[in-house]
Amino acid sequence: MKTLVIIAHPKYDNSMTQGFLKSCQKDIDSVDWLVLNREYPSYNFDVIKEQERLSKYERIVFQFPLYWYSAPAILKQYEDDVLTRAFTYKNEDGVLNGKELGIVTTLGEPIYHYHDGHNEAFTIDELMKPYHALAHKAGMKFLPVFSISQFNYLTEHEKVSLLVKYRNYLTNSHLNSFKSKQLWYIEQLQLIRQNLKDSKKNSMDMLIDQLQNNYDKLDELNWELSMIKKEEDE
Amino acid sequence: MKTLVIIAHPKYDNSMTQGFLKSCQKDIDSVDWLVLNREYPSYNFDVIKEQERLSKYERIVFQFPLYWYSAPAILKQYEDDVLTRAFTYKNEDGVLNGKELGIVTTLGEPIYHYHDGHNEAFTIDELMKPYHALAHKAGMKFLPVFSISQFNYLTEHEKVSLLVKYRNYLTNSHLNSFKSKQLWYIEQLQLIRQNLKDSKKNSMDMLIDQLQNNYDKLDELNWELSMIKKEEDE
Repeated sequence: MKTLVIIAHPKYDNSMTQGFLKSCQKDIDSVDWLVLNREYPSYNFDVIKEQERLSKYERIVFQFPLYWYSAPAILKQYEDDVLTRAFTYKNEDGVLNGKELGIVTTLGEPIYHYHDGHNEAFTIDELMKPYHALAHKAGMKFLPVFSISQFNYLTEHEKVSLLVKYRNYLTNSHLNSFKSKQLWYIEQLQLIRQNLKDSKKNSMDMLIDQLQNNYDKLDELNWELSMIKKEEDE
Repeated sequence: MKTLVIIAHPKYDNSMTQGFLKSCQKDIDSVDWLVLNREYPSYNFDVIKEQERLSKYERIVFQFPLYWYSAPAILKQYEDDVLTRAFTYKNEDGVLNGKELGIVTTLGEPIYHYHDGHNEAFTIDELMKPYHALAHKAGMKFLPVFSISQFNYLTEHEKVSLLVKYRNYLTNSHLNSFKSKQLWYIEQLQLIRQNLKDSKKNSMDMLIDQLQNNYDKLDELNWELSMIKKEEDE
């Protein structure tokens, strides 16, 4: 699975959050980045080029800081210009049909503010409905929104956790499945193993074996459970 | 009450709908128009000028065709640039506090498509949440969204009805109140009366008198009803 991250951020080069998110991923071949503000500072999109680019990826992620409860204007201009009707509408054989649309949004306020009765009054899910509607129209699967709240206040431990979750969001082909998350962790450890010194590879092998054993055991249990359910149904 | 209509429309001069909406209102002193695409074709907003403009109106209306479930990008750029934090946030003594925010949006699809299970899957109210959240943050009252669906298919009769409702949306200082709507109709007829030939003024006077009588009678009934309720409560 290949993923394209389309970034809208008027101050991209100065953003610590964006710098962190980029550094997390630079070793992954299956993820590409398009920083709209760098590529198109005057908002004049090369529509054909961008449509061809989109067609090459299975997962497309819009990544942006939340400005007035939506993406910065450049992403809207990109939508208005690049996502032409013939290219996009599912019922007109649009090219995006069957792909996935994800949203990574960074918030200046704590996430709990985005609820009834709190400062922001609306949930992130409510505010992202226009993107959900776009996905629906294009026949894309809309992924759960990935929100990053107040990055600058995160502890080192929270940043590592964010790194893992973000990497999972971009590269795990079955988000939301526990089984797939386990396989994904094993794969990630195997990737890390390649860059370890030989002296450290042994302990990593043990860890990977342990995870693989757990995974196999769980798989067996799941199979037994499904057999029991089947008998009950008969 | 003074109203500012802020229009975002990349093809404003060719739009029959926008032309119709403008022609409906040209006789009203209390409504002004700002066509963003005309005034700022390269999106370089004069922030101070626009903030000063906003401060002069009690009702602000964003008017636009729905592009990808939101306004065309130029309106988002206007929000991102003109609505600075210090100018807008209610809790930082923003200037918009206490004003009203309305939305007039024109749709290419029938309005009933904007529902669960239909083509568009989300309601207009759901899709407009980012504007509602902006109003909330600024301390503005968010008005019911005014949607115009498939203008080109409207009959002449429907267009006249649209004209009256739109005019009401821009100029009636108490939307949603039946009492206020009646007073508004009487005012409108008095305006029309001024431009009538003398020979026609008589029949208009009769109509206005009739409406005024109805209004007074209803006012009396309302008063009696409130007295009865009061007695019951005691």
